[in-house]
Amino acid sequence: MENIKSYVQQHKDRFINELIELLKIPSVSADTAYSQDVIDTAEAVKESLSKAGCDYVETCDTPGYPIIYGEKIIDPNLPTVLVYGHYDVQPPDPLELWTSPPFEPVIKTTDIHPEGAIFARGACDDKGQMYMHVKALELMVQSNTLPCNVKFMIEGEEEVGSASLAWFVERNQEKLKNDVILISDTGMISNQQPSITTGLRGLSYVEVEVTGPNRDLHSGLYGGAVANPINILAKMIASLHDENNHITIPGFYDKVEELSAEERAEMAKAPFSLEKYKNALNIADVYGEKGYVTNERNSIRPTLDVNGIWGGYTGEGAKTVIASKAFAKISMRLVPNQEWEEITELFTKHFTSIAPAGVTVKVTPHHGGQGYVTPIDSIGYQAANKAYTETFGVPAIPVRSGGSIPIVALFEKELKSKTILMGFGLDSDAIHSPNEHFGIFNYLKGIETIPLFYKYFVELSSK
Amino acid sequence: MENIKSYVQQHKDRFINELIELLKIPSVSADTAYSQDVIDTAEAVKESLSKAGCDYVETCDTPGYPIIYGEKIIDPNLPTVLVYGHYDVQPPDPLELWTSPPFEPVIKTTDIHPEGAIFARGACDDKGQMYMHVKALELMVQSNTLPCNVKFMIEGEEEVGSASLAWFVERNQEKLKNDVILISDTGMISNQQPSITTGLRGLSYVEVEVTGPNRDLHSGLYGGAVANPINILAKMIASLHDENNHITIPGFYDKVEELSAEERAEMAKAPFSLEKYKNALNIADVYGEKGYVTNERNSIRPTLDVNGIWGGYTGEGAKTVIASKAFAKISMRLVPNQEWEEITELFTKHFTSIAPAGVTVKVTPHHGGQGYVTPIDSIGYQAANKAYTETFGVPAIPVRSGGSIPIVALFEKELKSKTILMGFGLDSDAIHSPNEHFGIFNYLKGIETIPLFYKYFVELSSK
Repeated sequence: MENIKSYVQQHKDRFINELIELLKIPSVSADTAYSQDVIDTAEAVKESLSKAGCDYVETCDTPGYPIIYGEKIIDPNLPTVLVYGHYDVQPPDPLELWTSPPFEPVIKTTDIHPEGAIFARGACDDKGQMYMHVKALELMVQSNTLPCNVKFMIEGEEEVGSASLAWFVERNQEKLKNDVILISDTGMISNQQPSITTGLRGLSYVEVEVTGPNRDLHSGLYGGAVANPINILAKMIASLHDENNHITIPGFYDKVEELSAEERAEMAKAPFSLEKYKNALNIADVYGEKGYVTNERNSIRPTLDVNGIWGGYTGEGAKTVIASKAFAKISMRLVPNQEWEEITELFTKHFTSIAPAGVTVKVTPHHGGQGYVTPIDSIGYQAANKAYTETFGVPAIPVRSGGSIPIVALFEKELKSKTILMGFGLDSDAIHSPNEHFGIFNYLKGIETIPLFYKYFVELSSK
Repeated sequence: MENIKSYVQQHKDRFINELIELLKIPSVSADTAYSQDVIDTAEAVKESLSKAGCDYVETCDTPGYPIIYGEKIIDPNLPTVLVYGHYDVQPPDPLELWTSPPFEPVIKTTDIHPEGAIFARGACDDKGQMYMHVKALELMVQSNTLPCNVKFMIEGEEEVGSASLAWFVERNQEKLKNDVILISDTGMISNQQPSITTGLRGLSYVEVEVTGPNRDLHSGLYGGAVANPINILAKMIASLHDENNHITIPGFYDKVEELSAEERAEMAKAPFSLEKYKNALNIADVYGEKGYVTNERNSIRPTLDVNGIWGGYTGEGAKTVIASKAFAKISMRLVPNQEWEEITELFTKHFTSIAPAGVTVKVTPHHGGQGYVTPIDSIGYQAANKAYTETFGVPAIPVRSGGSIPIVALFEKELKSKTILMGFGLDSDAIHSPNEHFGIFNYLKGIETIPLFYKYFVELSSK
């Protein structure tokens, strides 16, 4: 442990500067305007793996962006850790709300990060958290403490659904063979209280298009006489929740796991202040499904949210138009046992069925993924907990997250191994929002904690 | 009449070319990026009035875009016609749906316009129709047939609410004194069946902003636990109509005039094919207020339509975000007796009241105007009808339009005179839509009909 700390202390400035260089490349996978940048980022990751000590690195072509594979096999008889991460980032908009440009990383201090945090798109999600693993490998190789084999699989389409990764994993089961999958793409409760994410929600993401008249119309001459696609879309979206904020899609809840009163009581023990939560978001009240509290609504319950809506005249001033079309992007977060493809079908069928005769509706599925639960009695979970306990001084708390890493369920299905979600981000890091950042404390703590996971995983595996 | 026809025949190519030059200037009043073009258009109109024969022309400064005033006073004892029109145009978007650029006018033939139509933004609304009056003046001056005094008042903010015109009219009642106001900014039934618009709807146009959390949030971590401004906006919009498509704003219908069964029977005589209407718009069915037919829904009934909506991620691909804000532009078409300012207040009060605790709502009124009805026994209406009867061979039919020219009610209030709406456009001219056009037949027919209005108005006035 002392060796680890001193190595991190000695090299921390370089660790930070290397991450800053990586953050400068705008690898926005959702927007084809950035495609060369995404590819450049892949190459930068590949180089960094070589330098950190991988014996073999490879740019794996896929139908989409490449996957960077790297490995260091020290003994085929020892366990193998597969590290997964992603080098793509969310779109940075709305740009005007960033206090510094999203791809010009700067270090600023905040109340939560008195030691400074790196502000940039991808700082936490996931370049910063992914790069902790690269630097942890360097540390173990340089200090001759790597206790097992390691493989890296770093993809570039996580923010748009990981379609190519699924394609790749299905075709490379032997290459990717491992004993545990390690991912840092989640958060922890606070810098004083580490936690391990044991549950993830699934996702179904669709785009809907409502078409009314075949052209934009003058709202005076046609208003009131034809179905207005925007009004209709609003009405259709509104009808997807009932007065108790239950989702109204027939069959939507059929496979949802109902937690016991005991399990809900256990969940309620996690530290949470509703007042602080409301103040942090500047909202007068929370809002959600009747019968559940906030920490249940965003973890064990499925949800439906509009992520974007547009139609008609959205420029300056006023235009009296009835638009021909209106659009929305809608995502549903799912809980374990809900099949995302089935939910997408249920949505499509229902949404199409509720359209009135004056419009036509098109539903385009974007992507999706299954929910996932990690058992806390697994060797991987226990190794992670020991590692956190050693670096933070307190044990980690298991928590269910409301987010999705759709690929995790696929890993279990295709690679037959469990995933451990060792996240070092904080809720306040503003991932997917303007001013995303990642604490220097968190970044370095991750680099310290990861080698201990390897150590305890090998120790517990050999028992 | 033969003199008029021969003058138009002799000069028609020049009339068309002059209009084309005017249409090339993109006078989009809603977008400040075009402000110099709007001003250039004003100057072009001023010059055209001078050349046509006005004795006095003036660029009248206002708090907004200038108003062009022109006059030819031949005898203070004779009646005075005040011509109103506007030189600004609607925004041209969506640009990609135009088959030729909106500000590069071209003449193309269509089924309805075998003699050709000029395709350009503003071709019909209102540059083309306004310029008919300029050319009719030229004709009367050149042929020495102007039978009375004429004043022109051409504004540049009609498409954004005519705020400066209201300001100007209130301050220039003596200058604008007249016996009848003549406007061509409406349509007629067909090129075989002229009609005169006797009713206009009023308008209240507002923009709404719904704010939830103070920043965009990750939809996985917060989805289901906080009010999503887009979902809430959709729900609020949906609730503005009940299951019969009645508007639910308390007090909204209080002053609405209910037409008698006889009046509705009279309206039903206007030629109308529901099948053709649906086919023209490519819709499977019409949609609107229960208890009223299409031609009532868009004329004698008030309506509420969303003209634009936006919020969240609207780019390519998928972004799992809960937006901090969602917006909509909403317009209400009003019928005579509804006070637009009162309706705006009722909307604001109601819309704010239905917001749940998790969001805040801001309503910004854009502009509005009163509805209007022209009596068909007035001298102005009768003169117009005689003019149409002479040039088209059949009498005009009086119709109520669903559109709004908010300033017409103000004219009556401030100038104490009646307005005659001599429109020469067709419903199919796509005003406010891509590929707006104006038939050459209609343009020239307008130039022929207007001098006859002057003639009969003076004749009937002297009786």
